[in-house]
Amino acid sequence: MRAELVFTGTELLLGQVVNTNAPFLLRTLAELGIEVYRVTTVGDNLARLIRALRNAQESADLVFIGGGLGPTQDDLTREAVAEATGTRLYENEAAKQSILDFFARRNSPCPPANLKQALLPEGAEIIPNIYGTAPGFILTAKDKTLIALPGPPKEFQAMLNQYVIPYLESLSPGKHPIIKSRIIRTCGIGESAAEQKVYDLVQSSNPTVAPLVTIGEVHFRITAKAETAALAEALIDDMDRKLTRRLEGYIYGRDEVTLEQATGWLLAEKGLTLATAESCTGGLLSHRITNVPGSSRYFLFGTTAYDNRFKVEVLKVDPDIIADKGAVSSEVAEQMARGVRTLAGTDFGVGITGIAGPEGGTPEKPVGLVYIALDFRGDTTVRRVQFTGDRLIIKEQAAQAALVLLWRKLNCLGT
Amino acid sequence: MRAELVFTGTELLLGQVVNTNAPFLLRTLAELGIEVYRVTTVGDNLARLIRALRNAQESADLVFIGGGLGPTQDDLTREAVAEATGTRLYENEAAKQSILDFFARRNSPCPPANLKQALLPEGAEIIPNIYGTAPGFILTAKDKTLIALPGPPKEFQAMLNQYVIPYLESLSPGKHPIIKSRIIRTCGIGESAAEQKVYDLVQSSNPTVAPLVTIGEVHFRITAKAETAALAEALIDDMDRKLTRRLEGYIYGRDEVTLEQATGWLLAEKGLTLATAESCTGGLLSHRITNVPGSSRYFLFGTTAYDNRFKVEVLKVDPDIIADKGAVSSEVAEQMARGVRTLAGTDFGVGITGIAGPEGGTPEKPVGLVYIALDFRGDTTVRRVQFTGDRLIIKEQAAQAALVLLWRKLNCLGT
Repeated sequence: MRAELVFTGTELLLGQVVNTNAPFLLRTLAELGIEVYRVTTVGDNLARLIRALRNAQESADLVFIGGGLGPTQDDLTREAVAEATGTRLYENEAAKQSILDFFARRNSPCPPANLKQALLPEGAEIIPNIYGTAPGFILTAKDKTLIALPGPPKEFQAMLNQYVIPYLESLSPGKHPIIKSRIIRTCGIGESAAEQKVYDLVQSSNPTVAPLVTIGEVHFRITAKAETAALAEALIDDMDRKLTRRLEGYIYGRDEVTLEQATGWLLAEKGLTLATAESCTGGLLSHRITNVPGSSRYFLFGTTAYDNRFKVEVLKVDPDIIADKGAVSSEVAEQMARGVRTLAGTDFGVGITGIAGPEGGTPEKPVGLVYIALDFRGDTTVRRVQFTGDRLIIKEQAAQAALVLLWRKLNCLGT
Repeated sequence: MRAELVFTGTELLLGQVVNTNAPFLLRTLAELGIEVYRVTTVGDNLARLIRALRNAQESADLVFIGGGLGPTQDDLTREAVAEATGTRLYENEAAKQSILDFFARRNSPCPPANLKQALLPEGAEIIPNIYGTAPGFILTAKDKTLIALPGPPKEFQAMLNQYVIPYLESLSPGKHPIIKSRIIRTCGIGESAAEQKVYDLVQSSNPTVAPLVTIGEVHFRITAKAETAALAEALIDDMDRKLTRRLEGYIYGRDEVTLEQATGWLLAEKGLTLATAESCTGGLLSHRITNVPGSSRYFLFGTTAYDNRFKVEVLKVDPDIIADKGAVSSEVAEQMARGVRTLAGTDFGVGITGIAGPEGGTPEKPVGLVYIALDFRGDTTVRRVQFTGDRLIIKEQAAQAALVLLWRKLNCLGT
């Protein structure tokens, strides 16, 4: 079974409202094994809506329509469906009653405009709406099924869950292939380098392997289609093993796991502790680390030594080194890492110093230059990295690079 | 001028990724007075993408394509545009150079796959990408203009702002009815209290006034439609004045201004300095403060005293008070604020202590309980707040409440 989705709403085309119904419905359909061919959004315009519905019926068996079921003149889904399917609109008794009941429950009279919402295409079955006045409907005409739901997300999603999913499952129980997916998350390797390692696996058609790139990370989404959930999982497990072999040393987690979680779990497991001394990242690294529940077990102390005075007074960085090499230097990063580790008495100390911009760059030390030092019980590693982007992007990349450095070190420590 | 938008990405059709580029682009086009006819999303499938582009060219003069410009085999936008417009792909020298430069800045060799990204349809003009390797392009063929941008939102949005908007403005200045909008940003007042103050203004039809709620803030978007930009601005100015009168004492900024910027500007203007002592917010407050360019002028020092030992050793909190009242208490917040202010020698000190959860709550001190103290030259204010939500939401609400406290204090200081 193949589906198309059509959303209507001028507010959607003006970007004033973000369509959260689309991803909700798309995830639902993926889980039901229903392939989606296309998603189209049009404004509240009868001709365009009819055209979108006709196009959708050409390539799909199942057409969803979101929005346009309200009581105003802008709400044209009923008329468009009737036109696109060659059916007539008539007042549906069940729909009328549910609208009257809605107002009766509120002890308020039903405005005449709302009765327009009881007009449904002939042959349509109503989908009750417990949160609002607009009933949805399911209409099967010329071997195509159209399902119309109101736009407000609470109504759309409740009606989908309560009525539409059971309906779709009843259409052809167990007939649809199941779609499952898993995300393999890597860090410390660039997109193309990672893809080169798995070049042939990305060609696979079931499961498929699709790369996704975020700041400092490359993820691979494995998506498998099978008759049963267990078979889909087995396909995923097999591909997971292949990817794991190819990407050894880079995979830090799966699905929703974040790098700060993976790092935190390693610290907790090994009974090691951490302190941070940040300058250009301004506290972002400690913010990310402390997003993990239970991080107080291993993260003891963090500091943002924005003014050089505190690099000297709190972190015991040598003021002559700052004068000589500059606050943004390998030496200062190293002394910050050592200083905070010594102050806090932790196993690890991280020091970050750099130029987040937009001001403060020079030809020798341009905006985006960052030094990241990791001190593990006196043994120090320093990385010099040149990032690009605006201030926030540079902060994000620098904090990410520090986490990668720490995670890789923890990985090399053994158990 | 009429536009169509086409987005490509199988992850979009599976609902795995929410398309944030669409509303961003749609708002931009609305402000430029460019009507959008339809938005279509298809998977990474060459035939469907070509079909979507052909359909779009039929009804629009301007076609935007988002996504499909990466280095992998899934990335088919270049091929689809060439096919849909009857042009050939060739290696664009400027695009190739920008990709080589991107890797050179990172001191890393350019993987062969990335050079595929330099293939552009003949006649296309490149749109440089400072955050990634995928150049975008503008192609005018058969009186239609196609604009292709990469899918990652940071890249898409930066390229749109820096290159595409000026290009579109140059195409046909001043021909369309203009839609302009402005956001009035308030803090320190709840949604219903704010709405009650402006109840009648929200009924207005031109300009419209729409409330938007984010963590700890209520914004009002004023949108005006007029023949010229100047007339639209005049309508907005008039409504702005009305809202300003009703919401006196709560408006911290307009449009893209953030609370940390507004607060930072007040600190800089008054020549005052700040230091922070965080516990449950874990560095988020100092991260937000240091997102503002130039914040090093007023933000001198921050610390995340996660372990109580550092509340005592670094911030000089009385250990007896911690033992007696608990680390999450009004007294400890106050001593943290005073301690960090004294240590850093600043005008302001902020202290935050609370329970971010999900563990660590008790009946007397449940998860979400946060104490926030502000010390201004020895004069201290403490707020006790009970937040709800997950760990990150509690951190965000607490950091926000601290900024609100600081902003309101700065507002009361006079000039």
